[in-house]
Amino acid sequence: MLQFEHDFIQVVAKVVVTGQKIESCSIQDIEIYATKVFVVSASAQRLPLQIDDAMRPEADDPEGLQIKVNQDTRLDNRVLDLRTPTNQAIFRLEAGVCHLFREALRMRGFTEIMCPKLISSASEGGANVFGMKYFEREAFLAQSPQLYKQMAIAADFGKVFTIGPVFRAENSNTHRHLTEFVGLDLEMAFTHHYHEAVNVIGNMFTEIFRGLRDNYADEIATVNHQFPAEPFKFLDPPLCLEFKEGVALLKEAGIEMEETEDLSTPNEKLLGRLVKAKYDTDFYILDKYPLAVRPFYTMPDPNNPKWSNSYDMFMRGEEILSGAQRIHDATLLVERAKAHEIPIDTIQSYIDSFKYGCPPHAGGGIGLERVTMLYLGLDNIRKTSMFPRDPKRLTP
Amino acid sequence: MLQFEHDFIQVVAKVVVTGQKIESCSIQDIEIYATKVFVVSASAQRLPLQIDDAMRPEADDPEGLQIKVNQDTRLDNRVLDLRTPTNQAIFRLEAGVCHLFREALRMRGFTEIMCPKLISSASEGGANVFGMKYFEREAFLAQSPQLYKQMAIAADFGKVFTIGPVFRAENSNTHRHLTEFVGLDLEMAFTHHYHEAVNVIGNMFTEIFRGLRDNYADEIATVNHQFPAEPFKFLDPPLCLEFKEGVALLKEAGIEMEETEDLSTPNEKLLGRLVKAKYDTDFYILDKYPLAVRPFYTMPDPNNPKWSNSYDMFMRGEEILSGAQRIHDATLLVERAKAHEIPIDTIQSYIDSFKYGCPPHAGGGIGLERVTMLYLGLDNIRKTSMFPRDPKRLTP
Repeated sequence: MLQFEHDFIQVVAKVVVTGQKIESCSIQDIEIYATKVFVVSASAQRLPLQIDDAMRPEADDPEGLQIKVNQDTRLDNRVLDLRTPTNQAIFRLEAGVCHLFREALRMRGFTEIMCPKLISSASEGGANVFGMKYFEREAFLAQSPQLYKQMAIAADFGKVFTIGPVFRAENSNTHRHLTEFVGLDLEMAFTHHYHEAVNVIGNMFTEIFRGLRDNYADEIATVNHQFPAEPFKFLDPPLCLEFKEGVALLKEAGIEMEETEDLSTPNEKLLGRLVKAKYDTDFYILDKYPLAVRPFYTMPDPNNPKWSNSYDMFMRGEEILSGAQRIHDATLLVERAKAHEIPIDTIQSYIDSFKYGCPPHAGGGIGLERVTMLYLGLDNIRKTSMFPRDPKRLTP
Repeated sequence: MLQFEHDFIQVVAKVVVTGQKIESCSIQDIEIYATKVFVVSASAQRLPLQIDDAMRPEADDPEGLQIKVNQDTRLDNRVLDLRTPTNQAIFRLEAGVCHLFREALRMRGFTEIMCPKLISSASEGGANVFGMKYFEREAFLAQSPQLYKQMAIAADFGKVFTIGPVFRAENSNTHRHLTEFVGLDLEMAFTHHYHEAVNVIGNMFTEIFRGLRDNYADEIATVNHQFPAEPFKFLDPPLCLEFKEGVALLKEAGIEMEETEDLSTPNEKLLGRLVKAKYDTDFYILDKYPLAVRPFYTMPDPNNPKWSNSYDMFMRGEEILSGAQRIHDATLLVERAKAHEIPIDTIQSYIDSFKYGCPPHAGGGIGLERVTMLYLGLDNIRKTSMFPRDPKRLTP
């Protein structure tokens, strides 16, 4: 018997109708009779991992007796690892997330923009930023397209989105942090209330979830076969709770915390479970965060300065979007920066962007790999980044 | 009379039918009677540039008597500059290029992938690459997604595209070089001949040009009003010449050059004019470049090692895509790298990507800002990058 494992071959063959159904194959009524086989590209015969091992469902081996391929071996040999049906499905679905994001926003009149990644100052505070030599001076890698989205709004583009890499020089080695990930960002001017933006973003997520469910059912089933997960549940329109309602749910469940204290990661997860139990949804919006726990450019609630016009959105209890109405007035921006003890000279160009008028606006940023991971109920963000980057990994 | 120049205002008004046509306005039959005007966001009254100056058609001032806004003043105050109708049109059309690129490829079964920008070695040779400290070691910014597109092909994705920033630490201060620009990249496995890929890319460009012409006529007219240009002409199917045919045209026009000599920039421009005169097209493909002038990973022509299975594509005489069939065989790749005197250890991981079999494949990379610039007949790439980066400019 000829073996062509991992070789790329071309086959000249006749398609023939089978005499009886071939029970072991998905196509049962026809088969091909090869008359010539060409090896187009031969594979090395010793493989660093076996695809059969890499694609084995976790449930098939409850006693842990069979060979598993650990994550570093997979990532070191990503070209082979990506050939599993599971990985083919994950990345085809991830492409779908981008497509559905763009289409939902294009239909609503958003314009795609491109934002620079090389910037002249560490925009979001000095920590966790990659710096480099740029000809005769220093440059940094953008930690978000925040400033540029807002400049596009001040420049009259009305509604904008951008997809691109964002960089965090954070020495976090967790299941959900990468040093480089893909940001799906949007920003929009609104007329009366920042909830216009909250509604746009919420409905956009509904369209993404519906699109994935309806158009990627095969991919979801393929991934679930190896990594079982509950189907992702969502409501239409999406559930929107106020931050203090979230805190009340946590308190009911026995958590002791202040009403204006930020949510810890364990409390976020617990709240996700409480919301799922009460409302039967894996996606919800938490609105009106305490002003003190948000960045300086967040618009305070005009009715109560304890709160802010800001929101996070969650999938299966993990944050996947952080957003807010932004301060569009240079004077208020300076005041809030001072309250946060940020030296004004370090953010002067940001403040200057609002000197020539700017409409009220709000937006948010989404981590693509997190959305894919949480939609599919996977346990590690390295499963949804084709070539992940973390403090220890910069290859392949 | 109230003046609200650059203030953002909200107006409460009645719409009334006018008694007689208002000849000076584009909407002539109705007008609004404002009853209340709110200043939502006030602009500073001293502007660094006047929009009227920034949007003045070049043709309106043949004697150069009126105020012009020079490019650095525009870019230093990009938020104001972007408010001109011309800039609004340029960037809406540029978003259209991305949309049409993706749709043309999605319809042909391509999958969108995301490629890392942080890499562990200077992939395309050591020169012109930005390096930085990455935790305990060194990292570089990717000069192209080349390796990652090819790994996706080796990983069975078949046809892929990716849109993202690419970085060149090149101290070039020309009308067409940026240190950061947006790459539209694609790569595909083919069955019999690399012309399958050439045809896909050529037809994709035809669809982009047709889509721009048909769906962005207003934007094109707006840009032309300030910066007049001949309409962009293209053929369907696109014109494809062999490199040696291009050289023959240049020789006919009096240029002295060898058949296997690379095209200089002036010769590329001249060839563009010759092709336009002879074939009436602003877009064409130049196929089968001399092997010696292409990167080491370019597939030699199997029939004549003087030539290669590689191609460039041109708009108005400037290169906007460079592409080729890539070598998919590790042994041949090593041989060609040695011929180029490239130390094998610096590209070992690239070579290893082809060890486990890889289908024959070809692709190319497109500079987004160049496509927009040349389609519109503009004279500087800084006009088509929203926040351009060059050796001297890293702000705003």
